[in-house]
Amino acid sequence: MTKLPEPPYYAVIFPNQHAESTEGYGKAADRMVELAKEQPGYLGIHSARNADGSGLTVSYWADEASIAAWKQNAEHQAAQQGGIDQWYSSYEVIVARVERSYSGPEGRPSS
Amino acid sequence: MTKLPEPPYYAVIFPNQHAESTEGYGKAADRMVELAKEQPGYLGIHSARNADGSGLTVSYWADEASIAAWKQNAEHQAAQQGGIDQWYSSYEVIVARVERSYSGPEGRPSS
Repeated sequence: MTKLPEPPYYAVIFPNQHAESTEGYGKAADRMVELAKEQPGYLGIHSARNADGSGLTVSYWADEASIAAWKQNAEHQAAQQGGIDQWYSSYEVIVARVERSYSGPEGRPSS
Repeated sequence: MTKLPEPPYYAVIFPNQHAESTEGYGKAADRMVELAKEQPGYLGIHSARNADGSGLTVSYWADEASIAAWKQNAEHQAAQQGGIDQWYSSYEVIVARVERSYSGPEGRPSS
């Protein structure tokens, strides 16, 4: 899985529901993951989708400035418009400041 | 989707990878969702899993105290042990303070 740094950093949580037609989505989504990786402040991504079309992506960023810059990226803006116009029936964007983290099973604290 | 309040609140991001054997997982996972909904400070949940066994769950809580209480819940602790012993080959727990959010397509800010 994505190797994340020690907190603090930022998470952009993106729950979404696919619309009936998702033509072109897969290619655009793959491209956005590649493009995000090239952005300053990008730290990682986790993403999953259920068979019913509901999905959840969390991307991680060094700070709010890197989130804002990614949102304004021209190619990303075109993809966002595709999401609004076609690919998503609904979505949320939830921006959060990561305060602590741990991993497991091995790294799990005993407390 | 889950209707969340205005920030601030907390998100517990749980990326995970299923182990080869997940016998008993589905029933335990369903029960944990039901049990979480009964806890003080519970606000909502988003969850998805890919066909390759990688999954992502984000649960939302009013404050750190409600997260701590849920972690210590006896039935939840038994399920956590099942995750450690059997169901997950790896996982992360990432706790973040939600600072802002918006929804779409309709609710999207034009900025």
